Amino acid sequence: MIEIELKGYADDRVFRNIREAFEFMRKEIHEDMYFSHPCRDFSKTDEALRIRIKRFNGHFEALLTYKGPKIDNISKTRKEIEVTIDNVDAYIELLHALGFREVLTVKKSREKYYVEKGVTITLDEIEGLGKFVEIEKLETDERNIENEVKRLLKILESLGVKQFERKSYLELLMEKTNLSEKS
Amino acid sequence: MIEIELKGYADDRVFRNIREAFEFMRKEIHEDMYFSHPCRDFSKTDEALRIRIKRFNGHFEALLTYKGPKIDNISKTRKEIEVTIDNVDAYIELLHALGFREVLTVKKSREKYYVEKGVTITLDEIEGLGKFVEIEKLETDERNIENEVKRLLKILESLGVKQFERKSYLELLMEKTNLSEKS
Repeated sequence: MIEIELKGYADDRVFRNIREAFEFMRKEIHEDMYFSHPCRDFSKTDEALRIRIKRFNGHFEALLTYKGPKIDNISKTRKEIEVTIDNVDAYIELLHALGFREVLTVKKSREKYYVEKGVTITLDEIEGLGKFVEIEKLETDERNIENEVKRLLKILESLGVKQFERKSYLELLMEKTNLSEKS
Repeated sequence: MIEIELKGYADDRVFRNIREAFEFMRKEIHEDMYFSHPCRDFSKTDEALRIRIKRFNGHFEALLTYKGPKIDNISKTRKEIEVTIDNVDAYIELLHALGFREVLTVKKSREKYYVEKGVTITLDEIEGLGKFVEIEKLETDERNIENEVKRLLKILESLGVKQFERKSYLELLMEKTNLSEKS
């Protein structure tokens, strides 16, 4: 399964347009812990390993996710491997023992909207970064990626998104941290 | 939690002594896949990462286990971190993506016997290696380890075990594979 994903900068107006146009699915709170690899520089290989603690509708869920390098030049499409985990502390201890280290935690409030079968838009508010939108489609056929990326791009533009971003929230937060350390 | 563990070579007589002396708990079939670390030589650091697929009483269970280095000179006592996993294929894919590789699979038939509260003995038949017994105790207090090791050793000796082994089945199988390659 390939996750086609596009991200853009948003403001109150973009959020309002999406809230008016699409069906609200749910609100989620994410706490995303990112880990470094013991001998591979994920920031250079464009990979990521994450434990996400997700809260929604009173539920609690934790996931361990590997994200492979982006596979095109416009979207954030990547290979993903994800497993549900039932004991966050044991997994953190296991990762530590294997040499993985926490890099940063991204805290996010996310509203999820239904666009069409297989397509969702999320309104993200990232602690320390501000407002973003993401449009996402799960695709099984690699040959469809290019056309789907164009179509999803147009949907976001029609909602008022002007600037797109391929960098992850993790990368953006790390850049910001480095900048504020330098100034 | 620390797992105090002693292993000895066995034969039909040792197996019979244990079957007569202790209460049978269950029979398990294990398929243990061992993985190498992307940048650490587990055979030198004396660590292990394993996916165990366990079958018993018609049940099926899979576990991901990290074993730290042995912490004394007689027993196989190690730190263990273990999590139950619900999707073996996804975990194998995840480990591959992170650079871990399968080294060897150990196939084992195990009978488990109850000795006393917290202490079990297993009769192991390892494909390609033969018969072994293991005595195991879970201990919370590190100060008890030395005395407990001596006591467990005496129990095995009283059952007819003459030769002990600190090497893991994985190490023994790898040695055997290397020997047969050389001959």
